Amino acid sequence: MQQTLRIGIAGLGRLGMRHAQALAQQTRGCTLVAACSPLAQERDWAAQQLGLSATYESLEQMLAHPGLDAVVLVTPTSLHADQTIAVLQAGKHVFVEKPLALNVPDCERVLQVAQKHPNQIAMVGFVRRFDASYMNAYASVAAGEIGKPFLVRSQTCDQNDTEGFFVRFAETSGGIFMDCSVHDIDLARWMLGRPKALRVFASGTIALHPGLAQFHDVDNGMAIVEFEGGQRAVLYASRTMAHGHETTTEVIGTAGKLLIGEHAASDRVIRSDALGVRHAVVKDFYGRFEAAFAAEMAAFVAACRGEQPLTLTLSDALEATRIGLAITRSLQTGQAEAV
Amino acid sequence: MQQTLRIGIAGLGRLGMRHAQALAQQTRGCTLVAACSPLAQERDWAAQQLGLSATYESLEQMLAHPGLDAVVLVTPTSLHADQTIAVLQAGKHVFVEKPLALNVPDCERVLQVAQKHPNQIAMVGFVRRFDASYMNAYASVAAGEIGKPFLVRSQTCDQNDTEGFFVRFAETSGGIFMDCSVHDIDLARWMLGRPKALRVFASGTIALHPGLAQFHDVDNGMAIVEFEGGQRAVLYASRTMAHGHETTTEVIGTAGKLLIGEHAASDRVIRSDALGVRHAVVKDFYGRFEAAFAAEMAAFVAACRGEQPLTLTLSDALEATRIGLAITRSLQTGQAEAV
Amino acid sequence: MQQTLRIGIAGLGRLGMRHAQALAQQTRGCTLVAACSPLAQERDWAAQQLGLSATYESLEQMLAHPGLDAVVLVTPTSLHADQTIAVLQAGKHVFVEKPLALNVPDCERVLQVAQKHPNQIAMVGFVRRFDASYMNAYASVAAGEIGKPFLVRSQTCDQNDTEGFFVRFAETSGGIFMDCSVHDIDLARWMLGRPKALRVFASGTIALHPGLAQFHDVDNGMAIVEFEGGQRAVLYASRTMAHGHETTTEVIGTAGKLLIGEHAASDRVIRSDALGVRHAVVKDFYGRFEAAFAAEMAAFVAACRGEQPLTLTLSDALEATRIGLAITRSLQTGQAEAV
Amino acid sequence: MQQTLRIGIAGLGRLGMRHAQALAQQTRGCTLVAACSPLAQERDWAAQQLGLSATYESLEQMLAHPGLDAVVLVTPTSLHADQTIAVLQAGKHVFVEKPLALNVPDCERVLQVAQKHPNQIAMVGFVRRFDASYMNAYASVAAGEIGKPFLVRSQTCDQNDTEGFFVRFAETSGGIFMDCSVHDIDLARWMLGRPKALRVFASGTIALHPGLAQFHDVDNGMAIVEFEGGQRAVLYASRTMAHGHETTTEVIGTAGKLLIGEHAASDRVIRSDALGVRHAVVKDFYGRFEAAFAAEMAAFVAACRGEQPLTLTLSDALEATRIGLAITRSLQTGQAEAV
Repeated sequence: MQQTLRIGIAGLGRLGMRHAQALAQQTRGCTLVAACSPLAQERDWAAQQLGLSATYESLEQMLAHPGLDAVVLVTPTSLHADQTIAVLQAGKHVFVEKPLALNVPDCERVLQVAQKHPNQIAMVGFVRRFDASYMNAYASVAAGEIGKPFLVRSQTCDQNDTEGFFVRFAETSGGIFMDCSVHDIDLARWMLGRPKALRVFASGTIALHPGLAQFHDVDNGMAIVEFEGGQRAVLYASRTMAHGHETTTEVIGTAGKLLIGEHAASDRVIRSDALGVRHAVVKDFYGRFEAAFAAEMAAFVAACRGEQPLTLTLSDALEATRIGLAITRSLQTGQAEAV
Repeated sequence: MQQTLRIGIAGLGRLGMRHAQALAQQTRGCTLVAACSPLAQERDWAAQQLGLSATYESLEQMLAHPGLDAVVLVTPTSLHADQTIAVLQAGKHVFVEKPLALNVPDCERVLQVAQKHPNQIAMVGFVRRFDASYMNAYASVAAGEIGKPFLVRSQTCDQNDTEGFFVRFAETSGGIFMDCSVHDIDLARWMLGRPKALRVFASGTIALHPGLAQFHDVDNGMAIVEFEGGQRAVLYASRTMAHGHETTTEVIGTAGKLLIGEHAASDRVIRSDALGVRHAVVKDFYGRFEAAFAAEMAAFVAACRGEQPLTLTLSDALEATRIGLAITRSLQTGQAEAV
Repeated sequence: MQQTLRIGIAGLGRLGMRHAQALAQQTRGCTLVAACSPLAQERDWAAQQLGLSATYESLEQMLAHPGLDAVVLVTPTSLHADQTIAVLQAGKHVFVEKPLALNVPDCERVLQVAQKHPNQIAMVGFVRRFDASYMNAYASVAAGEIGKPFLVRSQTCDQNDTEGFFVRFAETSGGIFMDCSVHDIDLARWMLGRPKALRVFASGTIALHPGLAQFHDVDNGMAIVEFEGGQRAVLYASRTMAHGHETTTEVIGTAGKLLIGEHAASDRVIRSDALGVRHAVVKDFYGRFEAAFAAEMAAFVAACRGEQPLTLTLSDALEATRIGLAITRSLQTGQAEAV
Repeated sequence: MQQTLRIGIAGLGRLGMRHAQALAQQTRGCTLVAACSPLAQERDWAAQQLGLSATYESLEQMLAHPGLDAVVLVTPTSLHADQTIAVLQAGKHVFVEKPLALNVPDCERVLQVAQKHPNQIAMVGFVRRFDASYMNAYASVAAGEIGKPFLVRSQTCDQNDTEGFFVRFAETSGGIFMDCSVHDIDLARWMLGRPKALRVFASGTIALHPGLAQFHDVDNGMAIVEFEGGQRAVLYASRTMAHGHETTTEVIGTAGKLLIGEHAASDRVIRSDALGVRHAVVKDFYGRFEAAFAAEMAAFVAACRGEQPLTLTLSDALEATRIGLAITRSLQTGQAEAV
């Protein structure tokens, strides 16, 4: 039997805390042995809430932790590429949150380093691939149940954040398409069989958050992606939904279609009263994908332990970034852009 | 080609007005030539809104209208049996609203007279048999698509009427089971292949309308019907729904089940906002069955003109009354009652 | 009281027959007095099935029918503009099926003539505006219930026609966007408050019908429309659905969204069996919009009789054509196109 | 901080294995330290799959395991009462699967012993109380969101087991109402505020499994429960569903209603193809309640550790048994039975 995987986590923000909890308390086959963060309060949280004795101020320090096998990076996007490379060069497996980077050369640098470390796992956090509904849908598509898939329509729509966190975040997020649609881009490529993207067109509007204008960003964006061979994707991303977080993906084939996630019910309760017949909605991506986040960590650990191969590759992450960047360019130029 | 059927209508209350409008303006193959009502305002309505020149104070007078072919009775239930007999004995086709009567001997009297007039149509208004969804479901059941049907669960649930019209109506309505569930009883018999009912049990409660107690009636009633050969029905009737009118019927068979009418959406609009994801609901039986009422009148006219046979018989109406009465008895005695 | 409107119909193809039946048998306040068609079999149908004594080979002949008040044109699109003008100049009200024309100058010619006949109704058949669900949604939007609407996503998706009727029709249909999406364009403008369209981008693919390539047409098309002020529309049209006809429209506002028509259930029956839980789907646009077609004819007659104003204008039809043509150009050029 | 709870499990059948896995690998705050089973293969499974070093042939032996804090009983129903008593008298916390016993005196014996051990937890496995949807619904009811709840309609419907396991199990199961409906009875009491049951009536039929007749059991049963104060419950249990496991509960109040679990979708995928629009269904109770089983174990552990009180009492289990037995009697006698 494999040894327990010793994991360190870098970054304990909103999502980092979730990953850390899963690794410490839920994921089997691993032990969370260390955490690093430049923020004292995050290190304190790890010490007190998770009982971690080893906390560090920097990734460099944590990489020196004795016996460390793997690192989970939940740090700002601008650090992803360099940190991923550092972890690989330290001889450890690495999981990095999406997107891998906000430019193609950074992605390519990571791929080059990873190729030199073929026995280490390098995985990017496209969490939806680990959601049960997406996995069931993929299995149906792969089994030919909808004929040849030729169109994916996919959206990432967040409930409006009246405090506008993402507005302050806009300068470094890469924009709505790099921040949100990168998931949909990866899903489209996955469902369509990894076709080569040729060209994109994007548009967008600011419905509620004028502060985005200074960053040339929008709070609602839509895009069309043209793939080689005639396959297409239509994407939509929104920061301004009134009802909750609704991520949906439709895969349309010559013999049928699959629709994943519509209406985003938060439970199995239907309420009938003077307001009509209704159900409650998941409020954020974590509410929708909590189980998928856990499955993602489990898949990373299983891959590191050699128990189960990863189908998600760094090359997938590179292509998602490449397409996302072309879409972002198109939003700025107003023209169709080659990928 | 058949001649146009000349119809007179008796009773122009809430439902009578609807039938009159359909016959005057919508139903093909007939002309509404006369109406009768003891109320001057109802006769005036017919004259002014429908342009009817012939209005009468009594059914007797209307039956003498020259050339009359058929009569539609939308009068108080207590009059149904005698009026149906009078129309038949006058040599005319007759449509009578449900229930046929509030006791079995009255039903039997009607059947005896009808048997002596085999060339005249006598039809009872079980409108749900003419609803497209119920017809499609029946066709599926008849085609064996759900195997052998063994259980029907059916409900008639009205939106709460805060003005309590039905409380004042309770003395003559025959009670909630005779007034509402008689539809469900007929549907159960239809879907199950007209099995013989053996025994029933009923219960009920007063949730919102204490005024019903003096009439030994309830505003929510539930019953179990046992048919020969093991088939069963479970019925529910309510006067107190908060959200609207929701009539549903489930037919359960050995190879599948059909559910008709759930959630009673009033249109094809789904609304997503701070209250969740919801749809509006039909507010009353007419909102749900408007098209079925029109189809019912069309079926009556077509049957009178010999164009299309009726599958709904007076015997069906008798059995629905017989079962409804047994259920009503059970509610009073608290015991299972033979039908 | 107004006199009955005397109507003649031109064109008795698939949809023409439906309109003719409605006018002859269902629509109140009018009489279908004449029909014209170059095809003897269509004239025979009108004579025999509708009992029409006056049938003509040409529109010109029918316009001379004594006492004719209005004409309904259900002829090939290429004839729409000239025939609409001819009817107007003959002093009669006119209803013309969509699209008004396949080029902007033709539309403008019609508008100029119509302006000279201000007392005659000229109406284009955007049937969805008369569908109860679309009307309810519009009322909600107009009442501000979803805040400011900023995005419409709308699709017209037909069940795959394995006989490929539309392939043979492709040469004269104007392409998938002019034939199908013109409805969605009109809906988007309606729901968004008639904003001015600035720019469009379109893409498409041939999933099943290679014969379309010679006509530079596709069987699946998608487009983005940019309106002045930041509003947007995303359109999808398909000829290749496996499950049926599914027309849906989503109107997204700052305080909520409305989704019309999803899943296109053909009745209120839910079936649960070894294949899962499922419902049947309407098979074609007529199955979905049968009641709306009847309401559309009723609205035309009511407008001609001065009983009710039309909110749908020829200018709406012109704008729909203008946008549809720009989308069609974009599909050919692969570039964003100004409207 | 509390010490880790040391748990032993008795019974490693289908559900016992699930509980054992959860306790060994998932539930926090506990360690599975021992298991007992009279079957060598079950003990071997625990040793090999869970790595348990301590396995015993009898509960008596396991109760002597050093340091044992609590026992989870997943043994045949006929043993529940005596074993629960034995565990309590050994000074340990106890979780016992439902039903507590198949007769009232046995339940009462357990309650008497439990009263003498007030510092030990004794919990019965009404798993649905730990399902997120049921918990959300209960919170709504408790908050008065549906007014006064007066009717619960609840069903437990299993997919047809063509191998008829439950037929062989029928002799000792207590019948369909004790085996399945006991959950619905507990839910009804919970949602309605623990009213006193007065009277019941039951009926049933054998749709597919004639072998049940010799045990006076049915494969489809329906019952009405009358509570003091006018509240009512209508129950349905089935062994013969074609489509999967569908447990639903409707709580009807004076201001609205909640429906939990309808259609039992197994994931968030909607499929549209030649068969219509459909979704897949959970296949058995474990597929529906997997997360609830985990939450139930977590709640037991938390209660034993004093972290969180239990709202579910032995008295609830006694009342569920009392009502279930009255329903079972009614099925036999054909008469309404006092509880």
